[in-house]
Amino acid sequence: MHRQLPTVVSRFEQAYGRAPVVLVDMDEVLCRWEEHFVATHRRLFPHLLIADAGQRESFDLFAGLTLEEQHATAKVLDEPSFFANMLPVKGALEAVQEMLTVGIDVALCTSPWLSNPTCASDKLRWVDRYLGPAMAEATVITRDKTRVRGDVLIDDKPSVTGRAQPEWDLVRFTYHYNRHLPGPRIDGWSNWQPVLGEILEIRTQRAQASPDELPSLS
Amino acid sequence: MHRQLPTVVSRFEQAYGRAPVVLVDMDEVLCRWEEHFVATHRRLFPHLLIADAGQRESFDLFAGLTLEEQHATAKVLDEPSFFANMLPVKGALEAVQEMLTVGIDVALCTSPWLSNPTCASDKLRWVDRYLGPAMAEATVITRDKTRVRGDVLIDDKPSVTGRAQPEWDLVRFTYHYNRHLPGPRIDGWSNWQPVLGEILEIRTQRAQASPDELPSLS
Repeated sequence: MHRQLPTVVSRFEQAYGRAPVVLVDMDEVLCRWEEHFVATHRRLFPHLLIADAGQRESFDLFAGLTLEEQHATAKVLDEPSFFANMLPVKGALEAVQEMLTVGIDVALCTSPWLSNPTCASDKLRWVDRYLGPAMAEATVITRDKTRVRGDVLIDDKPSVTGRAQPEWDLVRFTYHYNRHLPGPRIDGWSNWQPVLGEILEIRTQRAQASPDELPSLS
Repeated sequence: MHRQLPTVVSRFEQAYGRAPVVLVDMDEVLCRWEEHFVATHRRLFPHLLIADAGQRESFDLFAGLTLEEQHATAKVLDEPSFFANMLPVKGALEAVQEMLTVGIDVALCTSPWLSNPTCASDKLRWVDRYLGPAMAEATVITRDKTRVRGDVLIDDKPSVTGRAQPEWDLVRFTYHYNRHLPGPRIDGWSNWQPVLGEILEIRTQRAQASPDELPSLS
């Protein structure tokens, strides 16, 4: 069942009458978030020790911190322009481009840090800078990703929940804090093609098995 | 078929197993956008004539302008903090609160002006200020509203299109530039209850008629 991605996409399109929709998270999936967080933390609070990026056991940034460390973490997250100044994750921009090339409808789907005064605007600026204006047009900023339509969500968050049952299948982008969880995952944009292909193929087969019971995005 | 809204909502919940989702646009529906635009335009470009708010025939802000006027309009739209400083539309905040009270899942759904450097963040700030942090959590910022799940979208835009076939029914919030179009509409938050009730009731009856063919949000 290991088909090439263009074949998978075209089979999906035949089954659903539309392109597959892949939602891609930003922080830590497209943007080197924690690296930037650690560097900013060390710059603003040089007297506080903080571990190098990539070793965090908990997705919760405040877990196990002293009060002073909690205050510092909050200050870093609220720093103006923080979310505009991250570098891209290796291979991420190329992967988005490759998805578009095979006919996937790619949308970015990202949660703003609400207390940061420039976060949401910085995210759009980042997308415009690194992926261009067309992807800024395809960016959805929301605290609740279950509100967004899609077939797949690629995210590093261990569990993505919200008001609705999600329509998409979650594919975890591997980080230290999600590495023990079961389910499909992508490791550093190395193996995204077969993983994505398999999930889309399963959704195609589900549509073929019971065409009337499926939500149609178009 | 004129049921009270709480009855309509509870019938909807029974049919779908979830609350109805109503998406509410911001500019000109919750926020007095054009009034603020005209005032800012007159402040920044006092030598240029601009009509009072409420008389625009075209949704397109640049239609029929001279080059100098186009330049001025672009400058106003890109003015930092422009989108944070609008007043609420009369009755809008109360209407959102009443929807929440009867059990509707209300989400705000708004398109950012991408070239304004603070627009997206200002929109979240506006929501936090006038509707509180829970509604900021329920705000979706996207250029393409067809990507968002919902039963109804309340919007002043004459035609709301995007990459997908929308899942929601469009209810127009009446303004000069959309007043000739057919379809359900709300006039200044006066008659929203019966209009919304009727659409939700139709969706309930559709679910009861063919439960298998409907997209399920939860």
